[in-house]
Amino acid sequence: MPSYKAPVDDIRFVLHDVLTIEKYSNLPGFADAPRDVVDAVLEEGAKLCERVLAPINQSGDQEGCKIADGVVTTPKGFKEAYKTFIDGGWSGITSDPEYGGQGMPYVLGFAVNEFVSASNMAFGMYPGLSHGAYEAIHVWGTDEQKQTYLPKLVSGEWTGTMNLTEPHCGTDLGLLRTRAEPQADGSYKVTGTKIFISAGEQDLSDNIIHLVLAKIPGGPEGVKGISLFIVPKFMVGADGSLGARNAVKAGNIEHKMGIIGNATCVMNYDGATGFLIGEAHKGLRAMFTMMNAARLGVGVQGLAQAEVAYQNAAAYAKERLQARSISGTKFPDKPADPIIVHPDVRRMLLSIRAFVEGARAFYLWTGLKIDLAHRDPDATVREANEDIVALVTPVVKGYLTDKGFESAVNAQQVFGGHGYIKEWGMEQFVRDARITQIYEGANGVQALDLVGRKLGHKGGQPLMAYIGEIERFIAENQGNEGLKPFLDGLRASTDDLRDGAMWFMQNALANPDNAGAGSVEYMHLFGIQVLAYMWALMAKVALEAKAAGTATEFHDNKLIVGRFFVARVVPDTKALLAKLSAGADTIMALDAANF
Amino acid sequence: MPSYKAPVDDIRFVLHDVLTIEKYSNLPGFADAPRDVVDAVLEEGAKLCERVLAPINQSGDQEGCKIADGVVTTPKGFKEAYKTFIDGGWSGITSDPEYGGQGMPYVLGFAVNEFVSASNMAFGMYPGLSHGAYEAIHVWGTDEQKQTYLPKLVSGEWTGTMNLTEPHCGTDLGLLRTRAEPQADGSYKVTGTKIFISAGEQDLSDNIIHLVLAKIPGGPEGVKGISLFIVPKFMVGADGSLGARNAVKAGNIEHKMGIIGNATCVMNYDGATGFLIGEAHKGLRAMFTMMNAARLGVGVQGLAQAEVAYQNAAAYAKERLQARSISGTKFPDKPADPIIVHPDVRRMLLSIRAFVEGARAFYLWTGLKIDLAHRDPDATVREANEDIVALVTPVVKGYLTDKGFESAVNAQQVFGGHGYIKEWGMEQFVRDARITQIYEGANGVQALDLVGRKLGHKGGQPLMAYIGEIERFIAENQGNEGLKPFLDGLRASTDDLRDGAMWFMQNALANPDNAGAGSVEYMHLFGIQVLAYMWALMAKVALEAKAAGTATEFHDNKLIVGRFFVARVVPDTKALLAKLSAGADTIMALDAANF
Repeated sequence: MPSYKAPVDDIRFVLHDVLTIEKYSNLPGFADAPRDVVDAVLEEGAKLCERVLAPINQSGDQEGCKIADGVVTTPKGFKEAYKTFIDGGWSGITSDPEYGGQGMPYVLGFAVNEFVSASNMAFGMYPGLSHGAYEAIHVWGTDEQKQTYLPKLVSGEWTGTMNLTEPHCGTDLGLLRTRAEPQADGSYKVTGTKIFISAGEQDLSDNIIHLVLAKIPGGPEGVKGISLFIVPKFMVGADGSLGARNAVKAGNIEHKMGIIGNATCVMNYDGATGFLIGEAHKGLRAMFTMMNAARLGVGVQGLAQAEVAYQNAAAYAKERLQARSISGTKFPDKPADPIIVHPDVRRMLLSIRAFVEGARAFYLWTGLKIDLAHRDPDATVREANEDIVALVTPVVKGYLTDKGFESAVNAQQVFGGHGYIKEWGMEQFVRDARITQIYEGANGVQALDLVGRKLGHKGGQPLMAYIGEIERFIAENQGNEGLKPFLDGLRASTDDLRDGAMWFMQNALANPDNAGAGSVEYMHLFGIQVLAYMWALMAKVALEAKAAGTATEFHDNKLIVGRFFVARVVPDTKALLAKLSAGADTIMALDAANF
Repeated sequence: MPSYKAPVDDIRFVLHDVLTIEKYSNLPGFADAPRDVVDAVLEEGAKLCERVLAPINQSGDQEGCKIADGVVTTPKGFKEAYKTFIDGGWSGITSDPEYGGQGMPYVLGFAVNEFVSASNMAFGMYPGLSHGAYEAIHVWGTDEQKQTYLPKLVSGEWTGTMNLTEPHCGTDLGLLRTRAEPQADGSYKVTGTKIFISAGEQDLSDNIIHLVLAKIPGGPEGVKGISLFIVPKFMVGADGSLGARNAVKAGNIEHKMGIIGNATCVMNYDGATGFLIGEAHKGLRAMFTMMNAARLGVGVQGLAQAEVAYQNAAAYAKERLQARSISGTKFPDKPADPIIVHPDVRRMLLSIRAFVEGARAFYLWTGLKIDLAHRDPDATVREANEDIVALVTPVVKGYLTDKGFESAVNAQQVFGGHGYIKEWGMEQFVRDARITQIYEGANGVQALDLVGRKLGHKGGQPLMAYIGEIERFIAENQGNEGLKPFLDGLRASTDDLRDGAMWFMQNALANPDNAGAGSVEYMHLFGIQVLAYMWALMAKVALEAKAAGTATEFHDNKLIVGRFFVARVVPDTKALLAKLSAGADTIMALDAANF
């Protein structure tokens, strides 16, 4: 069975030494999370994930969920693990204290999410979806709705879901058919079929609060006529007690490639009682509150699968004896050298690790900006951070999941034939990671969001602000000899990032297909560039520790892995720029019928 | 259920118009395969694969193989399909007529293999492994062994297997422990455990001829002490009748990520009677007869999964209605445009198609060279072709399977969430394609074979001959305006190919790790370069057809897809060259304990 050890030290390095979150102790939440509290949360979260969630990951995959007459049974051990999870308060660590949450910084919750996803992604989706529902109600709900639903969602006694997709529509929600008929009492009767509803039904929580997109008859056509509804599985009385079963039922669970321990349900709404949340016909806006948070969470899932796959592949590579090093026998007392001596095995492992550590810094950097966007007293600071978060959200989602999947595949490859056998657990990481590229907006949609919406947002100001931050960093550290390779890589990739944006500006207005044709390449270019930035930030801290005489092997390793990233990954930005600059012509030339 | 249509027209284009195999009608085998016979074989092979094998691909995956007391049951329909397969003579189309084969050109058998692998890869491995056993016995067996085993292997009444891997050794066969004790009658008693034996046991054939690597006690240490043995499941009498059950038994079947319809067995040899084939202690050489053929076949499997995945993704993209084209509504009468209007969906599809069509030309080009290496009357020509085949074999295996897998993933992505659901069949292509990167020598081993052995073979003469062929082609076609983009891409990638080889020459002698550290990048660089060559060859033919007024839409499409390859894939060779030129330093710097 694969093992998992939460990377607590690496998270601490990024939070304390690179992002220096202590600087923000004047902000709400941060004030209650001094260094020792942050470290304790990480340590306790690590224990939970290593000891409770990881051991039921493979068995959950093998057993799967079962359904009989709409009742879903989760795999053995999930129910007990969920109880441990909520008893420990993990469902509400970043939630509003007014509703029982602990109000910790978002960035810390993000870190714990990584542990949960790495140890058991299928399990983690149950509380993960709940948190999305919590956020939507927290932002858009009436006071009464908040009082009714939030305390139980925060405590984890109830869970939540997101209901968007229908059989004929996923990306294009304007096509949806689920309808909500207004009733005399102000409620609605919701009728329709939703598919791909993660955690749609289960045996973990007392109630399930479904958030459902539907159309109110007579409303505008398309996406402008979509409203969001709260549809509880059990009706909730004024005193918070559970009442009658609502007319919503899981019709089936899907047979999927992975995340088999999570019940992906077909949900049938048959005149179910629902309550409008937010304004009528403005449901998409409310839904995006959940979606944006969910997209960042999915990026972390991708990275998390890469991390756990890396750990197991690295351990295997140190144990498996096979052939001799091409530069001469390294372990003459053994029948063969461990495969870690082979440059190509190291190349695969370092590719994963350079991605994982860079991507971890990136999501934590983004998470901190989310906190600042919410908590900073200065509105200008809040807005500037919100803009950057909006800009990089599709990069976190798209790049971290594309590379997370690729990393899981590389880790599986280290095992040779054993990687293909279920018993070893490596192929589960590949299957689980695969969904992250698809759900919460397929990565092609993320890329289009980046290029079509985010680049040009506010006249391109957020991108310019981001590039300005990089340029200042480069200027400030000019002449730092140890940092030179990192600054060179950062400068080259930032030039490509800017040139790519310029190319779109000059070519996408005349032909919008030019934006769509190069968007995925640009998203990857952005991903590499931002990781080059993260590696430069981390390298700077490591070099400072060396100069101060406080460095450990940890800092040396950071510099080694970072240099690998610059030498072996950064060269791709040039190729990506060349490809996107080729434009749409060769892509649009083929007649649709000839595909 | 996914569908499959064999790409007969595309194969015919390559065989007849690009490779002009009619030129070789003076050679044995080719003389009996004029154009109409070739076309008939392709048409009949297509029918078999479309109508018999494709319909049981998904059910075979769902049902899997079962084992009870060493007896394996293949999925429903496999037995009947196998009978149809051998009744049609497909098991022996390229085999020696002396043993009942049809003696057709190897290149034609290769094409039929693509159809078989695309329609049902798990099924195709049963006859595929047999063919490997046939080749080893045909090359290395005594006359008596040939007479005893070949006719039944050719007819398909018996099947064969390859037994290399043991629990503690795969790549490094020098470690193997299976032993063969000489007996007074000249036979051996073979004892040991082999794992990952594809088609090791089944209910399709009357007998199974296992080819088993083992060590004769007292022989040299390591790979120089390995011998190859024929171990039949049932002993064979002098009259060809089946006798006693031999002491070899399937101990278990593996639970795998994919190719679930094929029984991957643990084989227990318990003093089984075996017969030495070839010389004692020279078994590896004999085994490589099978391995090289098998490696080319695995490359075709990778491509085949890409082809079938493409077909289904293209069909879905033309049907699935979702959102509007960003350059303006294309189908106002429909509720949304089909997703084929979106540039990124086209990009994914064209990436696959540009790979598949280029790679198909590549494997057929290689297949023809194998025929010439065997059948040309001129020893110099035979040797020159053999050298090129040896050079590109790791590229066919490694590049076609890495890109085949990536293509299957891209095709799955076109389906959005539906791609993740088993019912649609797309995730099976991904799972099945994944093994091709691993077995018959993991792709990292292929890359090391290319860079460590093949580049320097005969002082680099084969590579120089190959590059010389390209340079002549470029020179001869200078001034062909329509061909210019193709020649530009070919020139750029060939320069990178040469520069990469030079870099290894200058840097790998001093530090062999420099070869291992850049080998996978070089294999990919080679793959892109050779596909750029194939696209130039195909474009030339298409342009000639246009000039002659005989062009159809087929030729126009070739040019469009080829230009996509040049614009969107060829830029990667520069990045690959930059990465491999970075050398081993950043890869070897990290202490093994710190991974």
